[in-house]
Amino acid sequence: MNDAPTFHLAARMAHIAPFEVMEIQKLARKLEAEGRDIIHLEIGEPDFRTPQPVVDAAKRALDEQPMRYTSAMGLQALRKAIAQFYADRYGVEISYRRIAVTAGSSAALLLAFGVVLDAGDEVLLADPSYPCNRHFMRTLGGVPKLIPVGTDTQYQLTADLVSRNWGERTRMAMVASPSNPTGTLVAPEEVARMTAAVREKSGTLLMDEIYHGLTYGVDARTALECGDDIFVINSFSKYFHMTGWRLGWLVVPEAYERQVETLAQNLYISPSAPAQHAALACFLRETIAILEQRRAELAQRRDYLIPALESLGFRIPVVPQGAFYLYADCSALTGDSFAFARDVLERAGVAITPGKDFGNNAPERHIRIAYTQPIARLKEAVARIAAITTRNP
Amino acid sequence: MNDAPTFHLAARMAHIAPFEVMEIQKLARKLEAEGRDIIHLEIGEPDFRTPQPVVDAAKRALDEQPMRYTSAMGLQALRKAIAQFYADRYGVEISYRRIAVTAGSSAALLLAFGVVLDAGDEVLLADPSYPCNRHFMRTLGGVPKLIPVGTDTQYQLTADLVSRNWGERTRMAMVASPSNPTGTLVAPEEVARMTAAVREKSGTLLMDEIYHGLTYGVDARTALECGDDIFVINSFSKYFHMTGWRLGWLVVPEAYERQVETLAQNLYISPSAPAQHAALACFLRETIAILEQRRAELAQRRDYLIPALESLGFRIPVVPQGAFYLYADCSALTGDSFAFARDVLERAGVAITPGKDFGNNAPERHIRIAYTQPIARLKEAVARIAAITTRNP
Repeated sequence: MNDAPTFHLAARMAHIAPFEVMEIQKLARKLEAEGRDIIHLEIGEPDFRTPQPVVDAAKRALDEQPMRYTSAMGLQALRKAIAQFYADRYGVEISYRRIAVTAGSSAALLLAFGVVLDAGDEVLLADPSYPCNRHFMRTLGGVPKLIPVGTDTQYQLTADLVSRNWGERTRMAMVASPSNPTGTLVAPEEVARMTAAVREKSGTLLMDEIYHGLTYGVDARTALECGDDIFVINSFSKYFHMTGWRLGWLVVPEAYERQVETLAQNLYISPSAPAQHAALACFLRETIAILEQRRAELAQRRDYLIPALESLGFRIPVVPQGAFYLYADCSALTGDSFAFARDVLERAGVAITPGKDFGNNAPERHIRIAYTQPIARLKEAVARIAAITTRNP
Repeated sequence: MNDAPTFHLAARMAHIAPFEVMEIQKLARKLEAEGRDIIHLEIGEPDFRTPQPVVDAAKRALDEQPMRYTSAMGLQALRKAIAQFYADRYGVEISYRRIAVTAGSSAALLLAFGVVLDAGDEVLLADPSYPCNRHFMRTLGGVPKLIPVGTDTQYQLTADLVSRNWGERTRMAMVASPSNPTGTLVAPEEVARMTAAVREKSGTLLMDEIYHGLTYGVDARTALECGDDIFVINSFSKYFHMTGWRLGWLVVPEAYERQVETLAQNLYISPSAPAQHAALACFLRETIAILEQRRAELAQRRDYLIPALESLGFRIPVVPQGAFYLYADCSALTGDSFAFARDVLERAGVAITPGKDFGNNAPERHIRIAYTQPIARLKEAVARIAAITTRNP
């Protein structure tokens, strides 16, 4: 029946590459099917389960609630709880009307770009950075403008880089603090300067704060303290450990509230009702206590792993203050991080992410390691990598 | 701090209108806050709760599973269950690899349009039809080409209409069977002719089958029996009564499998894990028995409501065979369906949807009524409307 199937591929797909790490994961699954023990340090998802009070809240809601569509912007109670969280944790007053609850921060990103970007509009972002961000822009016809960043700016954009790289068609700058893959933060004073620099260009700043809460030895401040004209995305996935539930939020400048709501109605109808009812328990004192224990555990993992990897010949020139990633220079060990990641997987049974997924800025010299496993497993991973690299500890 | 907020609105937003029904809902909430009893026949969401076996499966999964990200295409077990459903219910063999589980059929639509449409590409669709569809196209830079349809074609596109309206920039045709708002089906022979017509133009057919299972006196056949080069969207929201969970699926032509997976990885990461575990119970015999009881109940509501509305002066020239909507000509009662909907709400306390939400084809003469309430409430609604309209029964 399928005589003449036609296949036209949208032009955007030429810019939307599959992740390199998918090849690593495919190989990992093959090795596991052969009986090998693989230590997974490639995925941006910790080993912790969703906190029990959150799971319990979901189960209660499943008994008590009909699980219908909610408002496109989310349950009012949850929007208010998020606004209260900004007041309690950051001392920043935000009207709950500016909070759009979304299907993960993914949906939040699509909404923010959707209401601002026209085809051909540029967005400045750091290279290296999280690859999906530029693919969202491409989906909408926007053009990511990757600015190579290094250790001198903590792998982050600065006000100066924003000003110097702003062009005719630039509409937005996007900054992630803490960053994926580098785990670095932007200092509050630099956020303020960047806000001013973007405002001077009549542009829009989008801050990615999805790793907030997962900072070590320092508490992140929200960019919202720099003004009401900034889009901020956040998520229940990382600090709140609700990855699979797919729930996040967008803080919307007042001028865009109605447009974001209209787009959300059309693109999503409503965020997941069970996830929203569950998330109401995220802000309970008992949940926060669990989350803070885990944060301490992640800090210990980081503190173990940095010197251990350095002793193997990796370089981690900027100590990451947040997220759960180490972005390591592996050039003393290899000239090709992708071949290296494959080799480490095949010979040491440790899955890591090659730099290529994060941009074009010396990706062959970098790998990302996620400390998403207990310390015992991290030690095992280090020992296994040590056994196959020339420069043993 | 907010000295000079900038506000640039993406051009697409000029084409993405808020739903008229939102104004109706806002007024309904106001009246309810004043103590009025409002009968809600405006929302595309039945009064039934998610079937208990599905809720129970979710609660079990919450106890047993860590609720992490799943594969971007969904749990393999669920993809296989959906493929089996096509075999069992339709006698059509589909590889599970062609099934992408999505965050509602909303996400399925964005994926299908995302891999096919370039900016400026046209999509043919019926007027009246579900408004989000054209807004998805606009989000991606596509151009909806609304083809006015009437009773002569059961408010549906035909192969002839597709061929005659196909232009230089037309890339796709989209057909919903059953349709929202009209509830009509396309006959299987016409689906086959349309498939051929689209194929002749080297275009792509997208079939919306989200109201499958909710047909009365007839079983819908899937367009997949006409070929492997068709995109089909479906949903757990309607027949399976899982609206708030946000879960649907896309059947992908083999040639697009890898591209759809790449786009899904980037735009969504993964569909909701709790919803997927719950949905595994949708295909259990005991769940299907509940669903079929509800289908019978919906048929009774339709069979009550059509003559009752006709006795009030509404015209329903094509008896809808599916979904849970009546698309009624109200021109004997009003020259302005929006004012009429507002009047019916204010004076009779019955919320209905004005035609404007569904296109430009004589919207002022039409309203949509959703039979999403028990028959007793439908009777009350009819009595209340009778009391305020001139032509009482």
